[in-house]
This record gives sequence, C-alpha cells and structure tokens, in this order.
Amino acid sequence: MHSFASHIFPWCRSVSGPEVRRTLDAIQNLGIEMQVLEVPSGTRCFDWEIPDEWSLREAYVEDPKGDRILDVRHSSLHVVSYSEPVDRRISLEELRQHMHTCPERPDAIPYRTSYYRKTWGFCMSHRQAEALLPGDYTIKIDSQFYPGSISIGEVVLPGQVTDEILLSTYTCHPSMANNEVSGVVTTAFLARWLRSLPNRYYTYRLLFLPETIGSIAYCSLKLDHLKQHVKAGWVVTCVGDERTVSFLPSRLGGTLADRATLHFLQREIGRFDSYSFLERGSDERQYCSPGVDLPVVSLMRSKYGTYPEYHTSDDDLTLVTPSGLGGSFEMYRRIIEALEQNRTYVATCSCEPQLGKRGLYPDLGTGHIDDELIVRMNFLSYCDGSHDLLAVAERCNVPVSRLYKCAEIFRDAGLIRLHK
Amino acid sequence: MHSFASHIFPWCRSVSGPEVRRTLDAIQNLGIEMQVLEVPSGTRCFDWEIPDEWSLREAYVEDPKGDRILDVRHSSLHVVSYSEPVDRRISLEELRQHMHTCPERPDAIPYRTSYYRKTWGFCMSHRQAEALLPGDYTIKIDSQFYPGSISIGEVVLPGQVTDEILLSTYTCHPSMANNEVSGVVTTAFLARWLRSLPNRYYTYRLLFLPETIGSIAYCSLKLDHLKQHVKAGWVVTCVGDERTVSFLPSRLGGTLADRATLHFLQREIGRFDSYSFLERGSDERQYCSPGVDLPVVSLMRSKYGTYPEYHTSDDDLTLVTPSGLGGSFEMYRRIIEALEQNRTYVATCSCEPQLGKRGLYPDLGTGHIDDELIVRMNFLSYCDGSHDLLAVAERCNVPVSRLYKCAEIFRDAGLIRLHK
Amino acid sequence: MHSFASHIFPWCRSVSGPEVRRTLDAIQNLGIEMQVLEVPSGTRCFDWEIPDEWSLREAYVEDPKGDRILDVRHSSLHVVSYSEPVDRRISLEELRQHMHTCPERPDAIPYRTSYYRKTWGFCMSHRQAEALLPGDYTIKIDSQFYPGSISIGEVVLPGQVTDEILLSTYTCHPSMANNEVSGVVTTAFLARWLRSLPNRYYTYRLLFLPETIGSIAYCSLKLDHLKQHVKAGWVVTCVGDERTVSFLPSRLGGTLADRATLHFLQREIGRFDSYSFLERGSDERQYCSPGVDLPVVSLMRSKYGTYPEYHTSDDDLTLVTPSGLGGSFEMYRRIIEALEQNRTYVATCSCEPQLGKRGLYPDLGTGHIDDELIVRMNFLSYCDGSHDLLAVAERCNVPVSRLYKCAEIFRDAGLIRLHK
Repeated sequence: MHSFASHIFPWCRSVSGPEVRRTLDAIQNLGIEMQVLEVPSGTRCFDWEIPDEWSLREAYVEDPKGDRILDVRHSSLHVVSYSEPVDRRISLEELRQHMHTCPERPDAIPYRTSYYRKTWGFCMSHRQAEALLPGDYTIKIDSQFYPGSISIGEVVLPGQVTDEILLSTYTCHPSMANNEVSGVVTTAFLARWLRSLPNRYYTYRLLFLPETIGSIAYCSLKLDHLKQHVKAGWVVTCVGDERTVSFLPSRLGGTLADRATLHFLQREIGRFDSYSFLERGSDERQYCSPGVDLPVVSLMRSKYGTYPEYHTSDDDLTLVTPSGLGGSFEMYRRIIEALEQNRTYVATCSCEPQLGKRGLYPDLGTGHIDDELIVRMNFLSYCDGSHDLLAVAERCNVPVSRLYKCAEIFRDAGLIRLHK
Repeated sequence: MHSFASHIFPWCRSVSGPEVRRTLDAIQNLGIEMQVLEVPSGTRCFDWEIPDEWSLREAYVEDPKGDRILDVRHSSLHVVSYSEPVDRRISLEELRQHMHTCPERPDAIPYRTSYYRKTWGFCMSHRQAEALLPGDYTIKIDSQFYPGSISIGEVVLPGQVTDEILLSTYTCHPSMANNEVSGVVTTAFLARWLRSLPNRYYTYRLLFLPETIGSIAYCSLKLDHLKQHVKAGWVVTCVGDERTVSFLPSRLGGTLADRATLHFLQREIGRFDSYSFLERGSDERQYCSPGVDLPVVSLMRSKYGTYPEYHTSDDDLTLVTPSGLGGSFEMYRRIIEALEQNRTYVATCSCEPQLGKRGLYPDLGTGHIDDELIVRMNFLSYCDGSHDLLAVAERCNVPVSRLYKCAEIFRDAGLIRLHK
Repeated sequence: MHSFASHIFPWCRSVSGPEVRRTLDAIQNLGIEMQVLEVPSGTRCFDWEIPDEWSLREAYVEDPKGDRILDVRHSSLHVVSYSEPVDRRISLEELRQHMHTCPERPDAIPYRTSYYRKTWGFCMSHRQAEALLPGDYTIKIDSQFYPGSISIGEVVLPGQVTDEILLSTYTCHPSMANNEVSGVVTTAFLARWLRSLPNRYYTYRLLFLPETIGSIAYCSLKLDHLKQHVKAGWVVTCVGDERTVSFLPSRLGGTLADRATLHFLQREIGRFDSYSFLERGSDERQYCSPGVDLPVVSLMRSKYGTYPEYHTSDDDLTLVTPSGLGGSFEMYRRIIEALEQNRTYVATCSCEPQLGKRGLYPDLGTGHIDDELIVRMNFLSYCDGSHDLLAVAERCNVPVSRLYKCAEIFRDAGLIRLHK
C-alpha cells in the first residue's frame, strides 16, 4: 500500500484534469474494474455547476538574478490549484501578494486552491519567502481552462442483495499523503479485497471523486438509487498516519454505519477520538445533508484540520506509514466483516432447545465450556427477530464474529432462521 | 415598572371586590386594551363555585385604653381576607384566638385568607401581639359579602397565527411585592411591549385573574379554545427580587414552554434553581391538571414559599427592585423573542448549496469567518423539517437568535423554506 | 415455614419420581388445592422429550473391610440423580472415576445430576474420599427407570380478572435448603396467603415443577394461555438465607414484574444485588425465551451459583433460617399487594377539585397536613389515564400503598374513575 502511495503521491491532482485520470488509471492497474463517469463542464448539479477543466503544463518563478527559485515540477503544491495562466515580469511587492506561505511551519509549502474565484498564486516555504531578493521576478503559470469534465471512478461489486455499503474517498488533492493519498490507497485496496470476497452479502459501491463537487455531482446523478439502497457508508479520509483513530458520526447518529463502527472501536480500539457531526469537513457534508441523508460516517486516523502537517508539504510519506495504512485497511476490513455477518435471526422453537442431544454443548476440552455455553444461550435468548447481531453483541458484550459462529451452528441445527 | 408597582402596592386586593377592579383599571391606564370578564357569584366552574364578592370599608382594633392599635388603612394585611363583619367588644383572650402573627419574623405582619370557611381575623406583628395590654378590646371589621363576580382581565393580542402563547398572573394578593405585585407589573409591561411588537407571529393571551378560582373559572369558560391553541404558557409569579432565578417545569416536561425556557436559562443564566413539578404551587396547578394539560411552566425569581419574607409584610418594595423587575421582564422578553423566531425549515436543495456564488460566505473582514460559516452550515444541515430552531440551537449550542439570522439569509436566498 | 422446610428437606427428589409427588402431597396437606399434571415419559415438549421416571430404592458403598461408608439414607445427595442401577465389586480406581467431591469445601457432599446422559455415580465429602482405603469396594445403586411421567403442581386462584400473576418454583432438588426447599416453601405459603386474600384482583397461577423440563413441558401445554394472560411473573428460587437480596430482570426489562419488584426494592430494601439477564440460570430461561417471552423476573436472596454452599450438602437448614424465609415471603407479599392495588385512574373533572368542601383536606390534627395534601394533589395531577399507580409512585417517590389510599378516597368522592 505504501509503495502504491509513493507512486501516485507526486501527481498534481485537482478537481479535474489529466492527473486525476492518471490516478484513476493507476487504481485500475491494481486490477480493479472501474467505471469512470465524466460529468461535463457546465452540468448543473443541484446548486452547483461543474467547472471547466484545468490542466497545468508548467509553472515557475525566477528571481531578479534569473535563478528559478520555484518550479511546480519539484512540488505540485507550489501553484494554487485552478490558477489562471500568467506570464509576466512583476515586482517583488506584487509577487508577495500572490505568494502563500505558512508562518507556523516555516519550512513547509502550504496547499491552496481557488476553484470558484479566478485568481492565480504560488505557494512556498515561509523561510524561502523571507529571503526573496529585491527586484523584478519572472513568473509563469502555463495553465489551461477548457470545457471538459470531472472524473468519478465508480466501482460496484454486486452482492447477494441490492442493499449497498458505500465507501467514498477523494482524488482532488495533490501531493499530500494523509489528506488524501491515504484515502485513495486504502479504498483501492479495500476494493481489491472486496472483489475477492466470496459470497459478498452486500453490494459495495466505492467512489473515487473530487471532494465536494464530485460527491455533489454523484448524488445528483444517483440520488434515488443511493437513498433507496445505501444501508451504511464511510468517507475514507486521513487514514494513513499512526497517531490516533478518529470517529465522526452521521448527522443524527444511530445508523448502521455508526453502530458497526462504534462496535468495533469500543471493543477493539478502546481509546479513540470521538468528534461531533458539527465538526465534519469532508464529503459527509454532502452525503448527510438533509436532502440526501445517507447513513454515512467517517473513520479516520488524525482528522483533517487537527494535525500540524495538515494541508502542507509536511503531510508526506513519512507521516503516512505502511503500518498506518495497513492498520486503517484492517479496521475497515473488520467492520465490513461484521456487517457481512450482521443478520437478524429468530428462534424456531419455543423455550431453550436441548443442546445436549445435538452435541451442541461446547467441547469439554476447551477449558472455556461455561463461557461458550453462556454466549450461545445468551445469543439464543435474543434471537427474537428484533435484534440484529450488532444489537445482540452490544447486549452481550461479545464481538459479532463470535455471535456469527453461534449463528452458523444454530442455523445448521435448524434452531434459528433468518428473520425476513 | 417599580413606580407602577408602588402605585398599586397598597390596595387591599382579594379574590374579588373593588380593589381588584381598581388594579385592572390601573393596568388599562398603562394603555393596555383589556377585556374584563365578570364571572358571577354562584357560577359553577368545574368542581368549584364562584364565591360572593367581598369588600372591606374599614377594620381596626382598639385597646383597653381606647388606642387604635391596628387599622387596615396602614396595611391591607391586617385583616384576614374574606373576613366576616364583626363589631364587638371582646376580651384579650378571645382576640388572641383571632389574631395571627409570625413568630419567626416578629416584626412582620403575616398574610392570611379564609375564602371558603367563614371566619374573621386580624394579623399583626408578633412583637406587637406580645405587648397587648390585658383588658377588653373594641374590634370592628366592616366587610360585606354580596352576590357579585370575580373579575378576570384578559388581553388578547392577535398574531399571524391563531397558535397562542399564554401569560398568566394573579391579582388577588394585597400589599405584597414579590408575591404578587411583581407578577402583575411584569405581565402588564410585557403586554405593553407585545402590543407594540410589529408582525407578531403568535397570538398572545395575557391573563390577570385571582389565583386558583380565577384560573379555574377561566379554564371552565375557555377550555376547548385553550387546549386547541395554547402552544406554550407561563405563570408569571414572584418575579421581582434579585436573589435567584427559578424554573418549574410542566407536568410531563418537554413542552415548547419547557424547551424555550431551558434554552434561555441554560445559555444565558447558567445557574438557576430547578424545581420539580411536584413543588408547584400556583396556577400551573390548574393549567397543568390532567383534564386541562396545557404546556405551561413557571419562570420565577425567588419561588413562593422559599424566601423568608414570603406571605408577610416584609415582602415589600425593598425586596422587589427596579432591577429585579426589569431583569424578569428581560428574561421573558428574550424567551418570547426566541419563540417568535422559532420555526421549522427545510432545505430546498439537496447537498450543500454553493454559498460563494451568492456572496453568502461570511464577510472576510469580521475575523469570525470560520465560526460564522460553521454555524451557517450546521444550521443548514438540520433544516430537515423535523428540527425547529430551538432543536437546532440545542444541537449546535448557539442561541436561537443567531440561527434566526442564518434563517433569514438562507430564506431570502431561496435555500430554505418554512416547513408546513 | 422453617418447620415445613425441615419436613420436606430430606427427601430424594429428582425431575420425576415418587419423592416429587410426596413433596406435592405435603404442599396440599398445607390446605392448598392443587391440580397435579402428569406429563408422560416420551411426550414431546418443544425441542425436548419427557424422560423416563426414576426411582431409587437404595444406594451404598462398602469399603474393602465391608464397612458401609456411604448410604443414600444419610443424604439424598450421595447418589448422582438419575444414576443407572449398578451392583458390583469394583476397584478403588474405578470407584474414584464415579465418585464426585468438592475439593473447595472438603467436608461437603456435592450435588450432581445426569438426566440426559446415562451414567451412574456417587458423591461424598472430599475429606472422606481422600481417606478411602485401597482395595475392592462393593457398590450398589438400586434405581429404576420406567415409563412414567413428570409431575407438575398447578395452583390456580381465580381473581376478578383473567389477567394472571405467575409464581413458579422447582421441586426437583433433593436435600438442599436455599436451592430449592426455600422456593417450594415460600411459594406454598404464598399460595396459602393468596387463597385467603379477599377480592383478589388478579388470577394467580403458582407452579411447582421440575426445573427446565418442567417449565418447558408446562409452556408447551399452556403457551397460548400464558402469553395471553400472564402480566407479571416471578421465579421463586433461593429465597431462604439472610445474606442479601438479589434481583434478576426480565429479558428486555421494563415489564410490570420488573417495575413492581424494583419499586419495592428501591424504596424498601435500598441495597440489593442487581444482576443482568445474561446471568440468569433458572426457569426464567424458559419463560423469557424469545418464543415464550413472558414478563418474568427473579427475586432471590443469595443467587444460585454465587454462595459458597451452593449445590452442596452445606446448603442446609442452618443457612436457611426462619427469618430468611419469612423475610422473602414478606417481600413477595408486599410486591403482590402493590400489584393488587396498581390501577390506572383518570380524573373526572378538569382543574383541581375543591377538596375543602368535601372534607378531603387532611385532618389538621395529624401534624402531616402539608405532606399528605401534597401527596394527594400530586397523585391527582397524574390521574391522566396513562400513569398506573406504580408510575405515579415513581414520579412522586411514595409507596403504591399510600397512593392507593388516596385513590380510594378520591374514587369514593367521585373525583377519579378507573381508566378502562
């Protein structure tokens, strides 16, 4: 995962343009079958309009001595995303008005965008900006706006039912690792794992799209379908570092996504950062908006906006580690496995069944006789058609996976059946 | 307000009689249009019957030396309210059986009534009673009972809707300031303010009536109307001192009146005394009775029965201050303003709207950019048709007034509409 | 009660057989009319089958010297219940494989059963087992299996309504006092008290049956009736010692049985052990199973499995005391009395009634004027057709019995009526 992250890290992605498509291609090259939806510039999407496409050929700044002191080839963060073309000789004073720095992290290049207000600008380290020589500078941004489209990568993996699990990440961020190469990589590898999952119960919908405009466009295209089918969803963002685990609930809480995530976090992680929906900041803003109202949460490592390297060149592949990425993949995998196992059962006979005659008393050799028997009987006592395994798990304080084993045993013995 | 309080303070009000009408006249003289309902003696009101009217011409006690040691002209508390007429020469022993004092506050005259059991009595300070000379006393209570009516002052201020806010206070207490000149004054000034309120949303119903029998009579006359229209109500009592703020909830809690009051108290007052409905003691006893069951609470300063001057002549206009009255007026005003602003909205478009193109990104100059933007987006995220502004305010921890400003902006921009 | 406990203590009860019937006869001899249901061996009861009947004529062990070192006549615990017949001379080694002891309590004989797996065995104190002489032993268990039946004692005491209160205890345990002679004795004496209760409101159903198979058989026979009629039920078990009081709730909690028991415990006992339904272990396993789902809880003294003498010969009549039994009887009596009084009322008039004209102001001589008046008015304020007396009691923090007195007074005065 980390090596794939390194591969796509340098590219100068934005909400549209060739580098986004290159990223989607790279994901497909992992063996993931993807439908790429192109939503043309000018398309109305609810309250929004798809902007023109933007591409950047080159961008640099040369100082009064003619030295090229800034070049987008060294970092895709050097140019304000969606900058207008410019090719001029300007004074240091004018340059400063278009130069963004991050005084709190004097060695880092900040990340800036201006999608909907036409302007141009450069970003450099504060230390470098402080040392700029007096005189006139040659600046060039060879960018292009043209009618094109935004690109949305959509992976749909059909399951036994048409109920869907949604995973959504965003492809519009250039060379930053936790936000958001990590989300792209984790979602891609989840897609690969899910593709190989035999007998998937749920249908999985994985989205690689530009933040905000992409999720809005996608909702506008598929609103009815999403509202009807999505039973749980996650915005996969900031999942690469190792510092903490963060949870952001859905708008009203209590959805299947909230329950499954909290079941995992409370049992397996214990200490994690719990945010309010009021602190949201990514595509759950769209998915959870009143008119859309999908059961979507966000499970992160260090949440956007909370870590010092956020939106600077310091958010790099030393912050995001193989173990950080792998751990996030594992968290999602575990939660999805619990969802795949999560069903509602109803006992087929009244009173307790006679386990002994069926050999269902736990094996005397395990040393866990009583505990396993208790779990089995407790499980059965809530097979009432109104507790799904997650609900039984909460009542009985055991993992879903363990209840699922009980369920298999009892289902095979004909003692429970799936509740319609 | 305090000067009006001083004006009406001395009058010898009771559940009926000329001094009550004089009080209602004084309120009307503030410029408040009032309907005075006269409910005749003998009228059945649910389980009760309107008593005969009572008026008092004079009442005094003369000691064995012929000195007039008690005269109702000095304090309207000197006579037990609804005393029978008496004009006799009696022994000190017999006098003592009809003389009420307050040993815990030896200098204060206690307040006593006997509306439904015929008797007569005087009240004086314990210190004075201790020093009474032996011998025979001349006593006189020149009172009259006669078929008449109780008088209910009703101010109705129509609004845009027929849904009503009820404010009820009582006019039956003679010369005591916190309980209840303060309630009369505050309600009168609220009436004056509400009358001048442009575009009132709610219809306001303000009642000036004798405690218990008055609210029972009024409910019996208007039960269906009240049950159908009253959405929130307050018993305005004991609102004149500066010691504390007290809240008494409705019978089951959670009504609009409870929510609006608690929203204000928790945000703006912070520390206040919270009582149980079991500790009620004024007209919420009637308004919240099972057969009436209006959404009525009580917001007070020092609650009746809890302060040492309660029901004595020490409950005077030094205890009740201009700032106490003004502060109570202000609390009610703020709560009513929140109610006037409290509506339920629903977003007109799915996903977040594009604020930038409408110039709705907060002004960059205010220094509160992010905070204001966050409040706006949080507000929008709960414009789902099931959260009124009070509910959004609780979720987002901001005052209703601030959300109302958001609502105006978004409504003007067509981004939200009122939920039916 | 303790003397009756001593009377039935020694008998070698099991899930079936003559000693169970002898116990049921003894209960009937207390003057309790009982229907004894005999459910024949081989009858299918849901997932179970009634086993053959078992009786034991004699059982002993003789040591190599010919001394009879174990005889079931000294303790009914000496033989594993439902042991197969055996009559052999065996080595000490083989004997040890069939000899159960309790190393943690070396002087106590453990209690063992093997109802559904055919085997045989003896139980003796660990100390005695340690001292067994080497050599061959003569062992004999003269038991019989034969088609018969299990016996269920059913006492039904009709009340004014067909709604039922269920009390269930078990008769299958031999000579152990807390678990379960105490349950049998307490339930028998409750039956005697209930029989004498004039104007019972509820119908009472008291069951004396073998644990597990008995309650399963009974449910299979009467499922529809029980589901329709039982409004609250208790498994009466482990109610004889004085150490503590234990409560085990119903499967989902909140039933009438939970509410009535907790009302009593919280008000009258204060400190008690509260268990989770997950810690259940007696016939609530059947009554609360999803397909049966009766509102059944368990109110115990020291809960089965939690006290050191549990399932050994040390659970004897020194552990179970007259005061332990009497106190449990009293707890159940008090709870049942509250249930008998528990009704839902609705006020017949709007607003508060005028108590004074009816002489319903509390007697001025009691010194509790205000408190009694407050309770009465608070009671009335929740006579709204949706609070039963238990619910009012919780709100007002008074016992049901006190509210019942209010209810009688107000009902007689025509101020409240029963809610349908």
